[in-house]
Amino acid sequence: MRGKQQQIERKREREILLVALGGNALIRKGEVGTVEEQFRNLKVPIKQIARLSGEYRIIITHGNGPQVGNLLLQQENCSLVPPLPLEILVAQTQGEIGYMIESTLDSELMLLGTDMQKHLVSLISYVVVDENDLAFREPSKPIGPVYTAEKAAVLPYPTRNTPKGYRRVVASPQPVTIVEKREIQSLIDMDFIVVCCGGGGIPVIRDGRTFCGVDAVIDKDLASAVLALEVGVDIFIIATDVEGVALHYGRPYEKFLRKLTVLEAAKYGKEGHFPAGSMGPKVEAAARFVKGGGKRAVITSIETIEEAAEGRAGTEVVL
Amino acid sequence: MRGKQQQIERKREREILLVALGGNALIRKGEVGTVEEQFRNLKVPIKQIARLSGEYRIIITHGNGPQVGNLLLQQENCSLVPPLPLEILVAQTQGEIGYMIESTLDSELMLLGTDMQKHLVSLISYVVVDENDLAFREPSKPIGPVYTAEKAAVLPYPTRNTPKGYRRVVASPQPVTIVEKREIQSLIDMDFIVVCCGGGGIPVIRDGRTFCGVDAVIDKDLASAVLALEVGVDIFIIATDVEGVALHYGRPYEKFLRKLTVLEAAKYGKEGHFPAGSMGPKVEAAARFVKGGGKRAVITSIETIEEAAEGRAGTEVVL
Repeated sequence: MRGKQQQIERKREREILLVALGGNALIRKGEVGTVEEQFRNLKVPIKQIARLSGEYRIIITHGNGPQVGNLLLQQENCSLVPPLPLEILVAQTQGEIGYMIESTLDSELMLLGTDMQKHLVSLISYVVVDENDLAFREPSKPIGPVYTAEKAAVLPYPTRNTPKGYRRVVASPQPVTIVEKREIQSLIDMDFIVVCCGGGGIPVIRDGRTFCGVDAVIDKDLASAVLALEVGVDIFIIATDVEGVALHYGRPYEKFLRKLTVLEAAKYGKEGHFPAGSMGPKVEAAARFVKGGGKRAVITSIETIEEAAEGRAGTEVVL
Repeated sequence: MRGKQQQIERKREREILLVALGGNALIRKGEVGTVEEQFRNLKVPIKQIARLSGEYRIIITHGNGPQVGNLLLQQENCSLVPPLPLEILVAQTQGEIGYMIESTLDSELMLLGTDMQKHLVSLISYVVVDENDLAFREPSKPIGPVYTAEKAAVLPYPTRNTPKGYRRVVASPQPVTIVEKREIQSLIDMDFIVVCCGGGGIPVIRDGRTFCGVDAVIDKDLASAVLALEVGVDIFIIATDVEGVALHYGRPYEKFLRKLTVLEAAKYGKEGHFPAGSMGPKVEAAARFVKGGGKRAVITSIETIEEAAEGRAGTEVVL
């Protein structure tokens, strides 16, 4: 018994690393998103995570934008099947992407050798949101396909004219708590690698003594920050399609930031440096994590997750 | 520490009950399968399972026929989205149904009171099949929508003229092993309720040191029997839309069987009493479980899961 107990203690000592994988971990710019493309792309972050699992306890979260968009598009083009609400489509993408991540990680761990055999699980996760969240009053998050103005006018849900064209908009409320946090905590304590909170989690509201799914999407980086604090993550890495946070992004005088304090983040955010649909929630999520007591938060590219864990890449968000 | 240890010992002593939920747990005859219907139907078995979780450690598996059929139908009617292979659609239904089961169970446990709070997880599961399985030579399992003969002739995959009309047929190979068996075992040892092996699991073959998804479906009762033996389940309940096993099913002289030995099962099976698409694999799965050393296997209706656990309903398959 003592050996087992010591083993558990040792495992608990290892730091917990949460990697939030952005959409480009699966589908890159210019790709249509075939399953072959997605499996190929996934190898880039998953190879790194497989190696990191020797040193850290690991949680992986992921986005689902294009995948849920495809399911919406299919659903709208097939009247033969009863349409499913958005939260069920999010659940479907958790199955889909959870399987792709888990099987890719399985393969990469096997390639590293038998001493790297780990327990892996992909969990369905749902996340409580507040039904009084202001986001429900004014849905603002564009999802799914682009419509013509004529088509948008007759759709049974709110739409908005975005730079790409008319799109459906849904509420993107703040994540309050991850329903499966105790389960995830137990699994991490046993050194399981856990894939969870896909697409920011399935949004539910409390309805008396039960939960009830709602038509909304939760930002996956914000949900990851909440989870990270709830289960005591040490290092929170947000992996995306740029090397980190920059001021004047995309301009000739763009300035990459190696470090960003939460105060600077708030100031630059107000100045409009971090757009709502892209870097904004990532900076907010990283800041929330360190303000909540998390050790390290890094925003980095999919290609440099290992370097970011070692403090050699990305933008470190600090107190 | 000792208290905790004793608690763990006590939990391990409790018998493990695996309930395999048939398709009618979600969609009943005559229903189109709206999400409201599915949630309402699920309450019938899940209320019983919630109560049983006080006495047993619980594993829930489930079918996915109509759900995967709907995804196939949508996919075929929408050329705007790259088609996904069957195993990815199975993964999507694991997310979808896993969420519906887990959230219904969460609600039912909350209604039973705080002393019934349990850890629940819905896991993505994949199941190894043998690439030399004879089933791959002659795909025979009908899935998805019904086609006209003209349409069937131009489809890019094998079809067969079934009593309902032309349908796509895929291989239904034997399940060899559940990839996540050690994970499921650990979770059950910690008294987690585990939802897994949805739709019989995502079929994969071993390809060198990695796994590779294949276009096939695994019978969910057979996969459940394999899982039940691999993780040491005590009681295996197959919940379906009839009260149990009968000879001359559907005829005026139908004879319900309270008990069925594995020898009788083989004999009656050869005589054609248990059709391949319905009772056949259930009887085979139950027989495989008791032959493999499982304590009790019962085939019963969705409405009488509790009675079946107590030995008061269904057909008991015995050595």
